[in-house]
Amino acid sequence: MKEDIISAMRAIAGEASVLTDPHDVAPHMIDWRKRHSGTAACVVFPRSTEQVSALLAYCNEHRVKVFPQGGNTSVCGGSVPDHDGNSVLVNLAKLNRIREVNAPNNSITVEAGCILADIQSAALDADRLFPLSLGAEGSCQIGGNLSTNAGGTNVVRFGNARDLVLGLEVVLADGRIWNGLRTLRKNNSGYDLKNLFIGAEGTLGIVTAASLKLYPKPSARATAMLAFDDVKDAVSQGLSLQGQFPGELVGLELISRSEFEISLKHAAKTRNPFEATPEWIVLVELAASSGTSEALTERLTDYLRDAFEEGVVRDAVVAANEQQRADLWKIRHSVTESNVREGMGLTHDIAVPTYRIPDFIGQASEALKQHYPDATPVVVGHMGDGNLHYIAMFSHDYWAAVDDKQKTQLELSHVLYDIAAAMGGTFSAEHGIGALHVPEMAKYKDAVEIELMQSIKRLFDPLDTMNPRRVVPN
Amino acid sequence: MKEDIISAMRAIAGEASVLTDPHDVAPHMIDWRKRHSGTAACVVFPRSTEQVSALLAYCNEHRVKVFPQGGNTSVCGGSVPDHDGNSVLVNLAKLNRIREVNAPNNSITVEAGCILADIQSAALDADRLFPLSLGAEGSCQIGGNLSTNAGGTNVVRFGNARDLVLGLEVVLADGRIWNGLRTLRKNNSGYDLKNLFIGAEGTLGIVTAASLKLYPKPSARATAMLAFDDVKDAVSQGLSLQGQFPGELVGLELISRSEFEISLKHAAKTRNPFEATPEWIVLVELAASSGTSEALTERLTDYLRDAFEEGVVRDAVVAANEQQRADLWKIRHSVTESNVREGMGLTHDIAVPTYRIPDFIGQASEALKQHYPDATPVVVGHMGDGNLHYIAMFSHDYWAAVDDKQKTQLELSHVLYDIAAAMGGTFSAEHGIGALHVPEMAKYKDAVEIELMQSIKRLFDPLDTMNPRRVVPN
Repeated sequence: MKEDIISAMRAIAGEASVLTDPHDVAPHMIDWRKRHSGTAACVVFPRSTEQVSALLAYCNEHRVKVFPQGGNTSVCGGSVPDHDGNSVLVNLAKLNRIREVNAPNNSITVEAGCILADIQSAALDADRLFPLSLGAEGSCQIGGNLSTNAGGTNVVRFGNARDLVLGLEVVLADGRIWNGLRTLRKNNSGYDLKNLFIGAEGTLGIVTAASLKLYPKPSARATAMLAFDDVKDAVSQGLSLQGQFPGELVGLELISRSEFEISLKHAAKTRNPFEATPEWIVLVELAASSGTSEALTERLTDYLRDAFEEGVVRDAVVAANEQQRADLWKIRHSVTESNVREGMGLTHDIAVPTYRIPDFIGQASEALKQHYPDATPVVVGHMGDGNLHYIAMFSHDYWAAVDDKQKTQLELSHVLYDIAAAMGGTFSAEHGIGALHVPEMAKYKDAVEIELMQSIKRLFDPLDTMNPRRVVPN
Repeated sequence: MKEDIISAMRAIAGEASVLTDPHDVAPHMIDWRKRHSGTAACVVFPRSTEQVSALLAYCNEHRVKVFPQGGNTSVCGGSVPDHDGNSVLVNLAKLNRIREVNAPNNSITVEAGCILADIQSAALDADRLFPLSLGAEGSCQIGGNLSTNAGGTNVVRFGNARDLVLGLEVVLADGRIWNGLRTLRKNNSGYDLKNLFIGAEGTLGIVTAASLKLYPKPSARATAMLAFDDVKDAVSQGLSLQGQFPGELVGLELISRSEFEISLKHAAKTRNPFEATPEWIVLVELAASSGTSEALTERLTDYLRDAFEEGVVRDAVVAANEQQRADLWKIRHSVTESNVREGMGLTHDIAVPTYRIPDFIGQASEALKQHYPDATPVVVGHMGDGNLHYIAMFSHDYWAAVDDKQKTQLELSHVLYDIAAAMGGTFSAEHGIGALHVPEMAKYKDAVEIELMQSIKRLFDPLDTMNPRRVVPN
C-alpha cells in the first residue's frame, strides 16, 4: 500500500517533489513546539494546482488520508499528520508564485505556499499594505493563514484573514478545481463559498490560491506604550482610543506585568521604557496614509496628555522615532520565545466581548489561585478584538513532576474555557481547532451547529480523506 | 389543501397574524416596481423565533413552499412568491425587537423585521454608528438586507452587509433553530456558517435575528461634489482619494451627466451646484470620530485645491454646512424615483475591478450606440466598490411600442453582462439574484461553483420548500 502511494505521488508530482527518507521527512512530522507528531507514507510538494488536483483525485479514489501543511506553525496540532502512516502529507511550499500584484485595484493574487512576509513585501514594493501580521510571518504560508482564518496584531483595524480575501481557488476532495479567484469588492451572485473554506483547516478541500485585498501604504505612524495600575483602566482607555481613532488605530495590545517581565528577562535587546514596572501595559499604534508621523504622534500625545491628567493613565512612553517604535514592539513580539524559556506555559487563546476582559481576567486569576496555586497568570492579547492569550505559567521543575500532564492541562483549560463561555466567549479565537481542540468543539458548541458542520463535512468530503479528525467532532 | 395550510398557520401564529383577504394580501404579492408578482395561500406574520420554527416545520412536513419577505424592496423579484398559490408568504415585520444595544462592545442584536433606519437610530441613540445605508432604508428590513448581502453608499469604508455581521440566529428548513448569535470579534471554532446564510436570500433557512457591528459615531464630516470632463479622470481621482483618506472616505459616488440632469429635472428641491453641467460628477464624503467638520473640510479642500491645480478636477463644490451637504446628497438619493419618471430604465447592477470602470463605460456606451441607438446611457454607481448601476434609458413612448419586451431586455442585458464578465466582473453586485437573475447564474457562473451551490441547497433544503427556484439554477 505504502509503496503504491509513493509511486503514485512520484508519477504526479515528479521524483524530486516526493520525500520519503526518514531524515528528510522528520521535520514535517512534528510541530515546532514538539507537542504533536505523526507519520505519513511521504511528503509531497506539488508545484501546480493541477498537481494538487491529481493527487487529491488519487487519494480520494484509493481512500488515502491527506494532511495539508503550510509553514507548520500551528499551535493546535493542525499541521502534522496522525499516526496512520499510510497517509500523504501535502506541503504547499513549492506552490508559491505571486500571480499578480494589481496596485490600481488594491489586490494581489498569490498561491497557497507564499510566505506571509513575502506577500507583505510584494505589497510594499507596489506602494501598498497587506495588513495581515503575526509572529510567525517569516515562515507561515498564506494557505495556512487562510485555512485557519489567522488573526494577529492588525485585526482591530483590518479584520481577520477572512476579511482580507476577495476570492479563492480550491481543490476539492475529489480533485475538482473551483476557480473562485476574483478581485471584486461586490459580488452578490450566489452562495458565499469562499468563507466555508476559510477557517476549515483543509478539511473541506485544499486552498491553492487567493486574491487578497491591499490597502494604501501608511505614510505616518505613531506608537506609544501606556502604563496602568488596573486592567479595568487599561481596557476603558483602550475602548476610548478605539472611539477616537477608528480609522487609524491599527494596534492595541494588552500585556500583564508578569508577561512584560518575562519578555524583558529573556529577550535580547529589550529594555523597560518605564521608570517603575507597571501592573498592566497597553501598546498602541496609529497609522495614516496622509500627513506625517510627527503630526500623528502629536495628535496621539495630545490625547494621552488629557488621559494622563484625568488620572487613568499612570505613565506613557511615546516613540519619537523608528528605533524607539521598534524597541517598544520588540517587547511584544518577544513574548512567545521568552515564555518557552521561562517555563511550561499552558496557553489559552480565548476571546470574550471586549468590555468583559477585566471580568475574565479577575475570575480566571481567582480560579488559578484556588485550584492551581503554583501557576502564575501571564496575559498578552489583542485587546481591541477581545482576544487574550491567557497563560498558566509553571516552572519547568514543577511541570516535570506533574503526574498526568494531559489530564492536568485539560482540566485547567476547561476551568478557563467555562469562564469565557459564560461570558459569550470562545475557547479558540485565532489559533483554530486542529487536532487539539476537537474535544472542546463537542463540549462548548451548540448542538445544531455541530450537526450542520458534520453534514457539510460529509457533503464536501464523503470519504473523510481530507485532514480527518480535525475541526469537526464525530 | 389551501384551507389546511391557513388553519395550521392560524394555530401557530394566531388568527390576527394570518392574512387571507385578497385586499390585505395584495400588496405582499407584487414588488414595488410592479414587475414581479405571485400568489400564496396566506401571508403570515410570526412574532417569535419559535413561531418561525413551528411554521417551517409544518411546511417542511407538508411540502408547502415558503416565501420569506422583508420590506418587499427587492428589485430582482426576490421578495414575492411564485404562482403556485398553495404556498405561504412569511413576512418578518412583526419579529422586530431590538434585543440589545451594547455600546461598550460596539454591538447591537436585532430581530429580522427591524427596519434598517430604526437600527441606525438605535445606534445613534447609543452614540454609535450602524453604517449600512441605502435608498430603501426607511422601509427595508435587516433580515432582507442580510439575506441579500446589501451594499449601499458606505461600502467603500465599512464593507457590505456581510462585513457587519458578528452572529446570526437562523431557522432551518425543518424548523431547527441555530443560535449563532455572538458578539465576538474573533472566533475560530469551526466552519463559518453565518456567511452561508448571508446572501442566500432565504433559500437555506430564514434569518430571524442578527448581532451586528457598531462603529464610533462620526463627529466630523466633509462633503464635496467634483466635476470632470472625462470618466477616466473621475476614476483616477477617486482612486487617489481612497489612497489619501482610507480611514475617512465613507462615500465615493459616480454620476453621469445624463443621470445628474434627470435627477435635477424630476426631484423637488434639487439645484445644480455647478455653473456649467459637468460630463461626470463624483460625490465624496469623509467622516471622522475626532476633530471638527471644519478641520476635516479644510483637509479635503487642501487636497482638492492641489487636484484642481493639476488640472484633473474641472470644478469642485465643498459643502460649507449641513444644509449644503444634504443638498448635494439629495441629488444622489433622488436618482431612483427620478429615473422612474423619466422613462423606462433597464437597470444593470454590475461590478468590475474599480480601475476598469472607464473601460466598461466606454465599451458599454459603444455597444448601446450600435445595437440600441434609442437608449440613453445613464450611470450612477458606488465607484469605490467598482459597482455601477448602468441604465439603458428608453422613453416611455418608445418602450410602449417594443414588441417582445422581455426578449429585448434580456438581450440588452447580456450584451452588458458579457462586457463586465470579460473584465472579471459580475452581473449582480449588490442587488442579488431573486427570481430575475437565475438564468444569468447558469450562463455566467463557473460550473463547479454551480454544482457546489446545488449540493448545498440540497443539503439544507432537501425538499426544496425554501424560496424555491430562487438563486440556484436547476
